Amino acid sequence: MKVFIAGLGLIGASYASGLSKHYQVYGYDQDERTCNVALEKGYVKAIGLNHLSMCDVVILAFYPTVNIEFLKSHKDLFKSGQILTDVAGTKSFMMKEIEKIIGDDIDYCSHHPMAGKEKKGIDFSDDQIFKHANFIIVPSIKTKSKSQAFLKEMGDLLGFKKQSVIDMEKHDKLIGFTSQLPHAMAVALVNADDFEETQAFTGDSYRDLTRIAMINEDLWTELFFENKCYLLEEMDKFERAFDLIKDAIKREDKAALKALFIASTEKRGRFR
Amino acid sequence: MKVFIAGLGLIGASYASGLSKHYQVYGYDQDERTCNVALEKGYVKAIGLNHLSMCDVVILAFYPTVNIEFLKSHKDLFKSGQILTDVAGTKSFMMKEIEKIIGDDIDYCSHHPMAGKEKKGIDFSDDQIFKHANFIIVPSIKTKSKSQAFLKEMGDLLGFKKQSVIDMEKHDKLIGFTSQLPHAMAVALVNADDFEETQAFTGDSYRDLTRIAMINEDLWTELFFENKCYLLEEMDKFERAFDLIKDAIKREDKAALKALFIASTEKRGRFR
Repeated sequence: MKVFIAGLGLIGASYASGLSKHYQVYGYDQDERTCNVALEKGYVKAIGLNHLSMCDVVILAFYPTVNIEFLKSHKDLFKSGQILTDVAGTKSFMMKEIEKIIGDDIDYCSHHPMAGKEKKGIDFSDDQIFKHANFIIVPSIKTKSKSQAFLKEMGDLLGFKKQSVIDMEKHDKLIGFTSQLPHAMAVALVNADDFEETQAFTGDSYRDLTRIAMINEDLWTELFFENKCYLLEEMDKFERAFDLIKDAIKREDKAALKALFIASTEKRGRFR
Repeated sequence: MKVFIAGLGLIGASYASGLSKHYQVYGYDQDERTCNVALEKGYVKAIGLNHLSMCDVVILAFYPTVNIEFLKSHKDLFKSGQILTDVAGTKSFMMKEIEKIIGDDIDYCSHHPMAGKEKKGIDFSDDQIFKHANFIIVPSIKTKSKSQAFLKEMGDLLGFKKQSVIDMEKHDKLIGFTSQLPHAMAVALVNADDFEETQAFTGDSYRDLTRIAMINEDLWTELFFENKCYLLEEMDKFERAFDLIKDAIKREDKAALKALFIASTEKRGRFR
């Protein structure tokens, strides 16, 4: 199996690292140094767009808008029967664009590896980040059976814990809640800090909660805007739950506040 | 040195475990089973209020209101020259009450071990939770030099990473921000979850951020109410920072959103 990875940033390079143990991996990145590092680390057999046409699978590992631009610019390199996938964090906006660009002979199925780091670029690549992470497969109107079977196999080879299949709208709604909202919360908490003494006053909770306030601003600005509608809904939902706590404190309603704590303890306790 | 620990829950028992390696530790708890476990584990030399009078140090390890009740009920057991301290998570309300109850011959200095677990009770006691945690000393109008020196020594023996000395109001303001606010955020996030699929869609961020949504509802309801004024201020401050993100998304203002991400990344990056 020959796999082409377009974009060798943190995720693309971590894929290249993991997949090169099982497949023949080729790749490309706009950044020359990144290309050289990928070769030196042995992640790819060769670098260059000329290898794309002869691969069985193409994985787009750029930001969503760059994936779209890449496809538009290099449409002619794709061959009939190829499997196409991408690793992007939001789906509806990008997938609809990709579906318009590619021919019906391309077997396109999107997916989302729910893993990352607070650092970007190939220098922080590490295929261990996929171990025990969630792997979401998001079929497209251009999905044939081959691509979905390949993704399943690839997810297993990379060591993901749990695979799920879901449609693009539900994906974006859930990601708005489980990933984008927590990032917004962490960023807001750190930005709200106007104390000099914070570090001496933190326990594990503040440290764990704000870790993700270190964020790749280009990528996440794009992801937030692409998921605007769903994310704003989830942010409002959170604020309503937060206001219930505030109101219970203001009214000094012990029973109400305890009930909110009992509910969250019970719900989080069922969670692994 | 003879130390009496009143209250052998998670923190009191973890103190007993750590301190019994250096001092003669005596203790008391309202729960008979807890007392037996403390004896079995060798945390205390003996159990019983009758030992309080002959100890050099008394550590109150109940909830704040129970500390106050305990002092009121057992005032007569305290002896001139004893060191008194407590481990409570909020200070202003409780310390002012304690200062009223005790005589001028008691050397009272409060402190706050910034450590804990998402479980309560002696069965989860573990003196390792203090390693690398923050230790905050909060002097009282009844503090003489002996108690503060003892606390410094005790903090070192228990393995705390960093010691700070701060007044009760500043303590409560900072704790409102670094501890209570994150707990409120985590509880609200979990309570806002109305999806069935959440678990398959979470990365480390959601898991880390919601760990503290498992919360001892009795203790934290008390702590939230005692710190009501400061906590509500910090909750408002957070909501203003959260709304800046929401507004940038609504207005699709890329520069504004990126600036918020850059600010949080820079600020959190300076943090250990």
